[in-house]
Amino acid sequence: MPPPTAALSVPSSSSPSLFPLSSFSSSNNPHVSSFCPAPTTLPKFSSLSKPKTPLRNLTPLSAVSIEKETLISERPHTFLRDADGGDDGSVRSRFQRMILEAQESVCSALEAVDGAGKFKEDAWTRPGGGGGISRVLQDGVVFEKAGVNISIVYGVMPPEAYRAAKAAADDRKPGPIPFFAAGISSVLHPKNPFAPTLHFNYRYFETDAPKDAPGAPRQWWFGGGTDLTPAYIFEEDVKHFHSIQKKACDKFDPSFYPRFKKWCDDYFYIKHRGERRGLGGIFFDDLNDYDQEMLLSFATECANSVVPAYIPIIEKRKDTPFNESQKAWQQLRRGRYVEFNLVYDRGTTFGLKTGGRIESILVSLPLSARWEYDHKPEEGSEEWKLLDACINPKEWI
Amino acid sequence: MPPPTAALSVPSSSSPSLFPLSSFSSSNNPHVSSFCPAPTTLPKFSSLSKPKTPLRNLTPLSAVSIEKETLISERPHTFLRDADGGDDGSVRSRFQRMILEAQESVCSALEAVDGAGKFKEDAWTRPGGGGGISRVLQDGVVFEKAGVNISIVYGVMPPEAYRAAKAAADDRKPGPIPFFAAGISSVLHPKNPFAPTLHFNYRYFETDAPKDAPGAPRQWWFGGGTDLTPAYIFEEDVKHFHSIQKKACDKFDPSFYPRFKKWCDDYFYIKHRGERRGLGGIFFDDLNDYDQEMLLSFATECANSVVPAYIPIIEKRKDTPFNESQKAWQQLRRGRYVEFNLVYDRGTTFGLKTGGRIESILVSLPLSARWEYDHKPEEGSEEWKLLDACINPKEWI
Repeated sequence: MPPPTAALSVPSSSSPSLFPLSSFSSSNNPHVSSFCPAPTTLPKFSSLSKPKTPLRNLTPLSAVSIEKETLISERPHTFLRDADGGDDGSVRSRFQRMILEAQESVCSALEAVDGAGKFKEDAWTRPGGGGGISRVLQDGVVFEKAGVNISIVYGVMPPEAYRAAKAAADDRKPGPIPFFAAGISSVLHPKNPFAPTLHFNYRYFETDAPKDAPGAPRQWWFGGGTDLTPAYIFEEDVKHFHSIQKKACDKFDPSFYPRFKKWCDDYFYIKHRGERRGLGGIFFDDLNDYDQEMLLSFATECANSVVPAYIPIIEKRKDTPFNESQKAWQQLRRGRYVEFNLVYDRGTTFGLKTGGRIESILVSLPLSARWEYDHKPEEGSEEWKLLDACINPKEWI
Repeated sequence: MPPPTAALSVPSSSSPSLFPLSSFSSSNNPHVSSFCPAPTTLPKFSSLSKPKTPLRNLTPLSAVSIEKETLISERPHTFLRDADGGDDGSVRSRFQRMILEAQESVCSALEAVDGAGKFKEDAWTRPGGGGGISRVLQDGVVFEKAGVNISIVYGVMPPEAYRAAKAAADDRKPGPIPFFAAGISSVLHPKNPFAPTLHFNYRYFETDAPKDAPGAPRQWWFGGGTDLTPAYIFEEDVKHFHSIQKKACDKFDPSFYPRFKKWCDDYFYIKHRGERRGLGGIFFDDLNDYDQEMLLSFATECANSVVPAYIPIIEKRKDTPFNESQKAWQQLRRGRYVEFNLVYDRGTTFGLKTGGRIESILVSLPLSARWEYDHKPEEGSEEWKLLDACINPKEWI
């Protein structure tokens, strides 16, 4: 089960297009209820008891929706509003730069290892500011489907979700709180059943100080993670992958890897199966109890670790010979991936409910998947070993 | 969007193993809260405003769970409790007999048309009474995956969900209300992309008169439907299918077919796609405002109409030559089937949350499915015509 903070959080990360923050209507319109088709009146929020818990956690999904995007033919230089400055050194602009660079470098590395497949790019903006770029490589030589998306959202959160604003302005009603969100999210499904699927997602969230509550602080937090989902275990691959995650974590805090490794095992849990989706990695959310510059560097380090963590494994496994039954097992595990993403992943389920860009949200789904009735791998087989590790998460390093 | 009564209902029908009624803990234990792991105290229910609305509709899914089943090596003669009598002419026993016969006759017809595939049977009981039989034919000549399940549930519903009990006993707290539920549910996925998928489900629900509220009436209702999901439209097939549904309906009430046809279009709606899952059929729920004997006959007629509605279409299309791209289109539509069942179908989502028999619940998923990024059929193509009919439901007869 996810840890309490995760369980309370609004949608996070397994979908390549959504943010934890998209639970607020994404618009610059100061009257948030006009972006909330059902119900039109905002529900009340109880005030939060733990000061460290981010303030948007109780926003009901039914109360919000996402503005319709407009496809654009050329990607803009920036998705930031003019007022945010193009390159002003703010965390907003540096995080945007980081995710744009990560998207570029990950896609280049994937095209290089694929050899033939090329990414197709779709860019869009939203009327209230922000936008996104989806990059998808489909039916390549090595990759069945690879999506690497970035997205910037300007939105408004209901004041009821913002405890600080309430505390600071008990005698008057504060207005809706504008927020900013930016993230990169990616799912990579290779063809070869011995080459693992990878998912990563890094995101940054910031609220403006509410206009009508001058004493209320500006808030920010980081979230993200990188996790590996193989159909077969090569212990050296899993160790390599986790070592790179640990190395990235250890540069910042020795508590990060064990904490975020467990969080990952807890989050990617397919409850109705009693299995994790894969062999984990790191996952964190609502992180704001460290220095902001430190966390920006940490998220950057994690994003930069994707290529060294993943590409060497793909190089090693992409041409391994396989038979039909190994391919069928990979397809069954892809079925589990679909189950997790459609049933549990908060980013995906939120996106489906609120009208995000469906094609970007569902690019996380594999090109193909399989469900056999009552399939049980033979005890002791390689398939059984994978299943066992998904049921009983292991310490790999 | 589903009509109001459906929208309020607890889980219904697209999963081959669950009932609308399984939202109550299925057990004969009189202390329902002991079967409700989270929360342990039952939430309060507001009383319902419409007298015709069945009384269990507001039971929250999170408050209930289903008893663990025990696989048995031989199917019993009956899943009814001794007290219900084996063959006493009650609606319970006649409905059980009807679904057992329907399972038998549908499976025989499917094996006959497949020619080689045979159904594998799994039977189970539950400690508190009831049980079920799953029959699955996988990887046959004609059928990729065909599941035909029956299930009998004895359970207890929270008294707060039972308005009549409250009204009759305002000054004392009535005990939990025992209920009985029985149903047949089936999804049939053929291999040939020109042969359509079929789903049907018929179910009966009954409450005992609450012990502590002698004035409160015994309640019962019926639900069900049969719907067709092709990847390509053959108008004569769709007309044939809908004609058989209409014929079954018209024997009982001329309002049934138009009403249940629309209800079906509304229920099988994939909101995030703006598409129906398929080309509809009939669907109804919470039906108790007609004579009970009449509705038992109607449900029986509907179940008996499955073979004449479906088998002739399969006979006609099972050997139609097809190419790879037609197969891929079928697989994409199967992806939509997965999306509907995992995201929207109330029976499935309820079953996943409450610990029903997972393999029976998910037998509705196709053997394989596909998701391509941003796939758009060419306007005017056969694929486009199907999509158009899923977006804009038609009157077929």
